[in-house]
Amino acid sequence: MTKPFHPPQRTLMGPGPSDVSPRVLEALGRPTIGHLDPAFVGMMDEVKALLQYAFQTRNALTMPVSAPGSAGMETCFTNLVEPGDKVVICQNGVFGGRMKENVERCGGTAVMVENEWGHAIDPNKLDETLKAHPDAKIVAFVHAETSTGAQSDAKTLVEIAHHHDCLTIVDAVTSLGGTPVLVDEWQIDAVYSGSQKCLSCTPGLSPISFSQRALDKVRSRTHKVQSWFLDLNLVMGYWGDGGKRTYHHTAPVNALYGLHEALVILKEEGLENAWARHTKHHQALCAGLEAMGLSFVVAPEHRLPQLNAVTIPTGVDDIAIRSTLLNDYALEIGAGLGVMAGKVWRIGLMGHACNARNIYLCLSALDDVLSRAGAPIKRGVAVAAAQALLKD
Amino acid sequence: MTKPFHPPQRTLMGPGPSDVSPRVLEALGRPTIGHLDPAFVGMMDEVKALLQYAFQTRNALTMPVSAPGSAGMETCFTNLVEPGDKVVICQNGVFGGRMKENVERCGGTAVMVENEWGHAIDPNKLDETLKAHPDAKIVAFVHAETSTGAQSDAKTLVEIAHHHDCLTIVDAVTSLGGTPVLVDEWQIDAVYSGSQKCLSCTPGLSPISFSQRALDKVRSRTHKVQSWFLDLNLVMGYWGDGGKRTYHHTAPVNALYGLHEALVILKEEGLENAWARHTKHHQALCAGLEAMGLSFVVAPEHRLPQLNAVTIPTGVDDIAIRSTLLNDYALEIGAGLGVMAGKVWRIGLMGHACNARNIYLCLSALDDVLSRAGAPIKRGVAVAAAQALLKD
Repeated sequence: MTKPFHPPQRTLMGPGPSDVSPRVLEALGRPTIGHLDPAFVGMMDEVKALLQYAFQTRNALTMPVSAPGSAGMETCFTNLVEPGDKVVICQNGVFGGRMKENVERCGGTAVMVENEWGHAIDPNKLDETLKAHPDAKIVAFVHAETSTGAQSDAKTLVEIAHHHDCLTIVDAVTSLGGTPVLVDEWQIDAVYSGSQKCLSCTPGLSPISFSQRALDKVRSRTHKVQSWFLDLNLVMGYWGDGGKRTYHHTAPVNALYGLHEALVILKEEGLENAWARHTKHHQALCAGLEAMGLSFVVAPEHRLPQLNAVTIPTGVDDIAIRSTLLNDYALEIGAGLGVMAGKVWRIGLMGHACNARNIYLCLSALDDVLSRAGAPIKRGVAVAAAQALLKD
Repeated sequence: MTKPFHPPQRTLMGPGPSDVSPRVLEALGRPTIGHLDPAFVGMMDEVKALLQYAFQTRNALTMPVSAPGSAGMETCFTNLVEPGDKVVICQNGVFGGRMKENVERCGGTAVMVENEWGHAIDPNKLDETLKAHPDAKIVAFVHAETSTGAQSDAKTLVEIAHHHDCLTIVDAVTSLGGTPVLVDEWQIDAVYSGSQKCLSCTPGLSPISFSQRALDKVRSRTHKVQSWFLDLNLVMGYWGDGGKRTYHHTAPVNALYGLHEALVILKEEGLENAWARHTKHHQALCAGLEAMGLSFVVAPEHRLPQLNAVTIPTGVDDIAIRSTLLNDYALEIGAGLGVMAGKVWRIGLMGHACNARNIYLCLSALDDVLSRAGAPIKRGVAVAAAQALLKD
């Protein structure tokens, strides 16, 4: 007979899920109520308002999709891309490639703007591509590439897209809550994120926000949205403003309790303070890793504080090291993805996981495990280097 | 400043979500671990085995979709229907109509077999339709119509479909765990369900199972599955048997803890015992409601024990009664859907909610609230009528 599952306690410093606050875990276990219960509908309104705060937007269409970040991505593409539409995608990592898949499965044509992995997207390349493709309707890019830890200049990329009269779809899965995502100020048209990164909620929900311009496009489509589940024309009947909520699908009630609590925590701290905390702890972790002799994949000016990709030292067994970290230190760090598999580790400092205790654990564990594996690192210096930046 | 949300404690006797066991709520709050953590992968294998038990199948492709039941439905259609495919849909309620939407959005042609709402699907009508459409490739129907409480003869419908060389897609959202769903014995090709009905888990996950024949069709498609998120060719890399798990999307880790626990509870009780419990309590509820003078929408031989649709007495205000039940008794029952809106109530007896305490609460509350509203019911007899059937 199968027994109840009791997971081990881990420290989650990978690319997400990140450590979840005990407050969020406690919220998940509160009594389930109906998805049309007035009390629940009141909570939904609060979730919307809190997400508007997190995204820094007044967009009425701001809500969590009832599925993981990949479904949030698909919500943006399936609602905005019509068969035959040309979509310019700036790629600098794994998730740009996923955007291409989405466009093609919607019947659109993807024009790729390739950038080196680990680098920010080059705005000039986008501009040139748009000049060469005046019939492009949408520009899509990843703000914070989870596969490499590189951050691009979303504001500038959106400006260029608008100059060429394109709508913009922005992946803010890893940036939201960790670095500024200013949806209104940057005039992003459609943006999606995930619950399990810097929001430090459990995985399974994907916050999105659509501008009025994007919503107008959804409402004036000539082809039906190919996904019934993700069709915003229908979803908005349930999540829409005011009045009667129309049943569309059954919302993941308890998961939304968790997101609500995670967003309340973010509001309590304040977005600016959360961004500053990510930057400060990133600098400390970085000082420690570099003191040890590890090198970063991304140049300092484009590094995401919440996702630190470091090159695996030559001769070191990627999988063995990560297993030892997990088994001996209950510490999870992330593997490389795509062309970076086996070449880099991705160390997350996301949301609730972004704290001094985790940095000391991570540096201490790497110091031990890498030296045991015979890696050419400098021992016993990493923690002190980090401490120097965390003391004040 | 928005405060943490503390939901009221309700008794959930609507069409789902149903009451969730405290064991499941507790499981949801266990520490989050990574979606590629070996401990998590071990739990995934247990979830698959437990779902195979619940579905009574050996299908290797048996797993929960990381989204609500509507996404489970879409997974079946989007993977099995190719552009131009003709799909015969037997409709006897709201959810058959949703199947039609799915087929058309996949580029297929839907041929509807209309049956009266509240009645079982007529196998002869299906047979006639298939004779008239020898090019049909798939037959789809709802086993247990959540909108009316009618159960159809899935075994016979599948036999007829196979006789005409069609694959079958079966909606078992409301039946799974409450009445027999014998996937292998009935030779169902693709089936989907929801976590929040008779499995008594929280909403947000959709168990599915595909036969080898269905899987062969998915693998031999000429068009890519239009949804990247729901493409089983990709999802199976993460949920598939043995070996290395390939990252596709981030699984909803804690929601899966809850489903695991709900399935362990089902296994502990035993499927046959769970079915018998639903039947016995349905009979008691039915005796009470009929003693009171309320009448059922569905004929006895086609009634779902877990979803009891009763006609709203003439002159009674649907919304006012349900509000009073919620406010005075913290009891949720369901409204009518589609053509039955305002005409019926749907009283769920699903999973953990299917117990004597809930029946007494529901009958006592209806007795009070309906008589206060001046409805022509017989007072003070319902509970005793139910008790007579629950005592032994």
